[in-house]
Amino acid sequence: MTSLAGELRAETIRVVSETGGHLGAGLGVVELTVALHAVFDAPRDRLIWDVGHQTYPHKILTGRRDKMHSLRQKDGLSGFTKRSESPFDPFGTAHSSTSISAALGFAVARDLDGASEIGHGDAIAVIGDGAMSAGMAFEALNNAGVLNKRLIVILNDNEMSIAPPVGAMSQYLSKIYAKPRFQDLKTISEIALRFLPERVRNVTKKAKGLLKGLAVGGTLFEQLGFTYIGPIDGHDMDQLLPVLRMVQERAAGPTLIHVITQKGKGYGPAEAAPDKGHATAKFDVSTGKQQKTASNAPAYTKVFAKTLTDLAARDDKICAVTAAMPDGTGLDLFAELFAERCFDVGIAEQHAVTFSAALAAGGMKPFCAIYSTFLQRGYDQLVHDVALQGLPVRFAIDRAGLVGADGATHAGSFDIAYLSNLPGMVVMAASDEAELVHMVATAASYDAGPIAFRYPRGEGQGVDMPERAEPLEIGKGRIVQAGQRVAILSFGTRLGEVLTASESLRADGITPTIADARFAKPLDQAMILDLVKTHEALITIEEGAVGGFGSHVAQLLSDQGVFDRGYCYRSMVLPDVFLDQASPEEMYANAGLRAADIAKKVREVLA
Amino acid sequence: MTSLAGELRAETIRVVSETGGHLGAGLGVVELTVALHAVFDAPRDRLIWDVGHQTYPHKILTGRRDKMHSLRQKDGLSGFTKRSESPFDPFGTAHSSTSISAALGFAVARDLDGASEIGHGDAIAVIGDGAMSAGMAFEALNNAGVLNKRLIVILNDNEMSIAPPVGAMSQYLSKIYAKPRFQDLKTISEIALRFLPERVRNVTKKAKGLLKGLAVGGTLFEQLGFTYIGPIDGHDMDQLLPVLRMVQERAAGPTLIHVITQKGKGYGPAEAAPDKGHATAKFDVSTGKQQKTASNAPAYTKVFAKTLTDLAARDDKICAVTAAMPDGTGLDLFAELFAERCFDVGIAEQHAVTFSAALAAGGMKPFCAIYSTFLQRGYDQLVHDVALQGLPVRFAIDRAGLVGADGATHAGSFDIAYLSNLPGMVVMAASDEAELVHMVATAASYDAGPIAFRYPRGEGQGVDMPERAEPLEIGKGRIVQAGQRVAILSFGTRLGEVLTASESLRADGITPTIADARFAKPLDQAMILDLVKTHEALITIEEGAVGGFGSHVAQLLSDQGVFDRGYCYRSMVLPDVFLDQASPEEMYANAGLRAADIAKKVREVLA
Repeated sequence: MTSLAGELRAETIRVVSETGGHLGAGLGVVELTVALHAVFDAPRDRLIWDVGHQTYPHKILTGRRDKMHSLRQKDGLSGFTKRSESPFDPFGTAHSSTSISAALGFAVARDLDGASEIGHGDAIAVIGDGAMSAGMAFEALNNAGVLNKRLIVILNDNEMSIAPPVGAMSQYLSKIYAKPRFQDLKTISEIALRFLPERVRNVTKKAKGLLKGLAVGGTLFEQLGFTYIGPIDGHDMDQLLPVLRMVQERAAGPTLIHVITQKGKGYGPAEAAPDKGHATAKFDVSTGKQQKTASNAPAYTKVFAKTLTDLAARDDKICAVTAAMPDGTGLDLFAELFAERCFDVGIAEQHAVTFSAALAAGGMKPFCAIYSTFLQRGYDQLVHDVALQGLPVRFAIDRAGLVGADGATHAGSFDIAYLSNLPGMVVMAASDEAELVHMVATAASYDAGPIAFRYPRGEGQGVDMPERAEPLEIGKGRIVQAGQRVAILSFGTRLGEVLTASESLRADGITPTIADARFAKPLDQAMILDLVKTHEALITIEEGAVGGFGSHVAQLLSDQGVFDRGYCYRSMVLPDVFLDQASPEEMYANAGLRAADIAKKVREVLA
Repeated sequence: MTSLAGELRAETIRVVSETGGHLGAGLGVVELTVALHAVFDAPRDRLIWDVGHQTYPHKILTGRRDKMHSLRQKDGLSGFTKRSESPFDPFGTAHSSTSISAALGFAVARDLDGASEIGHGDAIAVIGDGAMSAGMAFEALNNAGVLNKRLIVILNDNEMSIAPPVGAMSQYLSKIYAKPRFQDLKTISEIALRFLPERVRNVTKKAKGLLKGLAVGGTLFEQLGFTYIGPIDGHDMDQLLPVLRMVQERAAGPTLIHVITQKGKGYGPAEAAPDKGHATAKFDVSTGKQQKTASNAPAYTKVFAKTLTDLAARDDKICAVTAAMPDGTGLDLFAELFAERCFDVGIAEQHAVTFSAALAAGGMKPFCAIYSTFLQRGYDQLVHDVALQGLPVRFAIDRAGLVGADGATHAGSFDIAYLSNLPGMVVMAASDEAELVHMVATAASYDAGPIAFRYPRGEGQGVDMPERAEPLEIGKGRIVQAGQRVAILSFGTRLGEVLTASESLRADGITPTIADARFAKPLDQAMILDLVKTHEALITIEEGAVGGFGSHVAQLLSDQGVFDRGYCYRSMVLPDVFLDQASPEEMYANAGLRAADIAKKVREVLA
């Protein structure tokens, strides 16, 4: 097994060196992966890896080795677990902290004899310490502790999620970790006593005192109704195999096995990296050096962080909140200068939003920086704690629209819709990096209620950057190009594609008017109705699902009776499918939102 | 103080007997309310009551006594805390489990010198044991434990949220509760030792052993970084006042005071009720007898529960999930017959949705019954765990649309929008109680993916009930009345108002065609386009915000070029404001969605 683990580790490194992707998490669970597959009978036993990016070794072992070169690419393997990809992936896990809920569902379905072609075995969740900070993991532990089904949770404690983990839970786990490290083998047989029936255990009350000493920590989980075992060394087969076998043989109710692993284990460059090789581009195996493509345009994330930092230097009420993404949101830059005003609350988006709402109620100017897809976790808090109370929380929504290799699970498709129908919310989208600068300033200067601005993953358009960040007038769009017959009203970074489409239409003698809406809410009604008055057709375009910007424009036009007299209106939105991973460009091509699609739409409406 | 508490209790009972509302929770915290206001300096000290329905005594004490007769009525006091109502309500709390996040935000704003006219004092969250099962409470504890700000959390442990609380946390609290009940006064002075500086405490290590004995339980909170004090008797001023004073004087970091109270305390009929007088209609103070208005029409909730129970008798794969609302969702009836297939997961909507997803993946047919407003808590799980994986979870969405006395916080305004743009989702709304019967059957028989059906609070229309529950054809609406010129396409229970409007239009010689859409997704495109072809105008109506049913119809019509040639289309939706509490009828009148508004709209479009 140990030798298989060695080969698996080498293969994982080789694969990721050629594809890029998540490296550190997988390397940390190589031995655990081998041991779990040795002891348990997947796919009959449901093995649910929390945040599936740690499953490259699992994929290699479960019939997908020859497709690993296609990882995270168009038509290739997903970078996460995916039900449609393999029966060995019983549940898709790309957002964090879902695995215990899922495992509990499988355990209950088993005991209720749910329909299954392969039958039902054990339900096993493997969850990292970082993921434990999310409320839903606690909700699941709380429910599992009382349902008392046979259920196995493996706490993969690597003291490192993406950023170093934060929160009291993490400190608690560290305390356990700091105690006598690993139980040796003779104690493991003694742990077996824990699975004795209650009555027998009470008889051996004195032995129990001994056991208590063996249980290095773990009381928090025991208080929640779990049998706790650990911590054990997650890289040592001589600890992993007997513990897993014992649990497999004897577990009755919910059992938590606390396994200590090292992210990036066994690959020097990953072990040495501050993020332990979390996500990587293609790299050279011998040196660890990554191939990065150069770009002159600054990434949106950095533009946001730089602008916010500049503003915060002049306004000590500005503060920032992130949910375990200080690097991904750029707030690491902010924290370097204003540590006391920067809050990483852990993977805890619900708390992040309500905490921000109270910061605003307490006279601060909080910027709550959460990716579009993860802000879904804080939706009720957005409605109930922010919008309903009209509190001036600033939402910096990164990774808006299609994100590429991370695929459908990480697409920011729905935020325009779910934000824009909240009364009192202001919703902006930056069409380029210069606009983003102004939108950060707009948010900073706006105190009348909640305000959100969205921007995509990746590099900007390479436009000239403004000298100063200037607040925009709320609810005012801008005309980018004056033209005739057809007007294209863009919300967000499709504007670049619109301009390209316009170029290609020149040959046909068509010059559309192009406007940048800037605001989905409030709409620039005057500009929109003027465009309608002066053009035969209006086309809106956005990087989001139906129900958002285009729907609000349609509501305005129908309310105003524009359609009664006949008007050609089209709304270009994301199609009604979950788009598979590819490059963002390919994904937008599949979505029908590239320049060629826009030009085609213009020709259609003019025909 | 004790005598004031007695008067306050009597006044609370008197008020609720005349207005109806939440009684039990307020009665349980009468002494706590008096003690908190005696020791702390509100509004400078921010007192945040979780789920604000326990704040009637607080409202009486903070200048609102003479308005209590208007509680939960049009233009009256809110049944929850509300920022716009009083400076003594620093944060609106109507959804559960937000108070610790909010208090932490105020504590941080204080330490960062946030702008405030009244200055900043302490931040105090009062949270029930039931609310502790929600993930966001844990997220906040986890964050507070590490931020180490002075912050006071009062755990109001009444062993009873709405239903008896469930989950391991609740069992854990019960264990604490079962130990030597209340600390006597001499121990309280000893607890003061806990606030000594760390160094001093280490010196008095032997005393610490004694202290450990005094801390009856509480280790779970201590492990999360809180100083734990309790449990103490929440009805005994001689315990409450000295403990609160001591904490007020000495607390440095996060402190949790565990207070045991009795829901409904001091009013016999409430104490004797199974739900401890949670919510009540107007009642006679001497007998406790409630005035209930008789109705011949069955409530939607009961129709759902009865139908589901009938189906479950014939299909052992049907199971049901509720998040702490077995009574409110009607699943208590289901649980009586099929206890092993009914899961109350506690106030834990995130877990409820993902748990249901895995039940579906495990071959069960889960009905996840959550109110529209609370399903917002599980939105990311809806997207990521259910819709993305196409898992056949059945969502029974009660309290859809405007709900009356509970006001804006509990309105189910957004679910049509946030569900209908999810690829693969089927979204239905029942237009009456007979339709609901068929929709439950439709959901039970549909295995191809997720499906949701929404229905309002309250009584049905009084229509004939079908003998059998028959599955509807997916994506097919029905014509309710054949007419001319204008077609009204209704989604949900506005259909009754549409029919009334039609009656009133007869005098004008107008007979609209009336259709019941049944499905917002997939749309009945054939029916809609046929209505367009045969009518001059189409009006959609729904009990939801823009971005939902009407927006999907508008997208269809614009995509099909219907507007190009001129077509009169109107979409009647909830207005872009949070509507204040009133009766549901008044709220719909304010929303412009009653029969008169519909008739007016018809006349407009025909003019």
